[in-house]
Amino acid sequence: VAGQINFILEADKLKTVTRNTLLADGSRFENAAEHSWHVALAAVVLFDSAPGQGMDLSRIVNMLLVHDLVEIDAGDLLCYHTDQVPAQKEKERKAAERIFNLLPDGRGELLRQLWQEFEAFETPEARFANAVDRLQPLLQAMRTEGQTWRQHRIRKDQVIERMRPIRAALPYLWEYVLEMIEDAVKKGYLIDEEESKASRKDKK
Amino acid sequence: VAGQINFILEADKLKTVTRNTLLADGSRFENAAEHSWHVALAAVVLFDSAPGQGMDLSRIVNMLLVHDLVEIDAGDLLCYHTDQVPAQKEKERKAAERIFNLLPDGRGELLRQLWQEFEAFETPEARFANAVDRLQPLLQAMRTEGQTWRQHRIRKDQVIERMRPIRAALPYLWEYVLEMIEDAVKKGYLIDEEESKASRKDKK
Repeated sequence: VAGQINFILEADKLKTVTRNTLLADGSRFENAAEHSWHVALAAVVLFDSAPGQGMDLSRIVNMLLVHDLVEIDAGDLLCYHTDQVPAQKEKERKAAERIFNLLPDGRGELLRQLWQEFEAFETPEARFANAVDRLQPLLQAMRTEGQTWRQHRIRKDQVIERMRPIRAALPYLWEYVLEMIEDAVKKGYLIDEEESKASRKDKK
Repeated sequence: VAGQINFILEADKLKTVTRNTLLADGSRFENAAEHSWHVALAAVVLFDSAPGQGMDLSRIVNMLLVHDLVEIDAGDLLCYHTDQVPAQKEKERKAAERIFNLLPDGRGELLRQLWQEFEAFETPEARFANAVDRLQPLLQAMRTEGQTWRQHRIRKDQVIERMRPIRAALPYLWEYVLEMIEDAVKKGYLIDEEESKASRKDKK
């Protein structure tokens, strides 16, 4: 009992881990707990339309419930800061060790495996879960005039690369995603790679 | 596509619905979205130890993901304000009508059924989900010196009544829950019914 209660109270801390995504109404930054809820719900909503109905929705949802728990120790990293990813992964590995070990025997191991499956990005379920995890912040970024993108001078090609898992897991959404990204460039939320190369050439 | 995206963006609003529960660190009130994540995760953690292994964990988790969506329109009601429950239920019924209808055909109906199942409190899965939904705020209340209880002058018997679903769904936790409540009375977080009756008699 004590192990389970401790784990549930430890998980509460994820509500204080701030992400780089604004809520759709722009009122504040999102925290990692409410984000985890949002993507788990979105997975349930989008699952019907996904190809490969052999997938296990339950594992997708459970993966999304645990996928950010390691951020209790490691914090959230802006996904476009790719140079910091190796150090972040090491922090997350240590966090997983500590956090999942709070649970007695089998249950901690089960959650750790769900987290690892999400991270490994190999099973169809993990690919679907990752695709939903990338779609949700895109929707909120579009609603908030790309504030985080503008602040960090993010390029169109970076976002397309980041969204690529959607192409295979939610193919019927891919065109819609590309349209959103084009729209973001037009509105000045994202830097157009080609234009930015051209302007660098001009300066030479 | 538009229906699903609209629904996902509509759901974002649950992050701004404030509950009467403080986070375990007391820093602020919890919102209904992060609460929904927390109870869904707690259900996964506690499921192993539940009696009746014939239950479908996936339905429990999905129920908990959608159970508070109606609060986007209806807001959160302090569970001990029982006189306001009928009016609240009517608001929630209208909210369900609007929110689940944002989704195309089958998927909206599926989510509405999950919400109804949770509310009806009849299936073993709904009883388990409700038990977890009651346990989590109790844990946070204990960590925050029962601030909400003290503010609203909540009695011990009200909390025992509220926690009762835990007795059947998570019997191995029931003794632990009763101990927490006794502890809360000792520490002055909750009013002891008997003592309060006695003191009323004294005054006569």
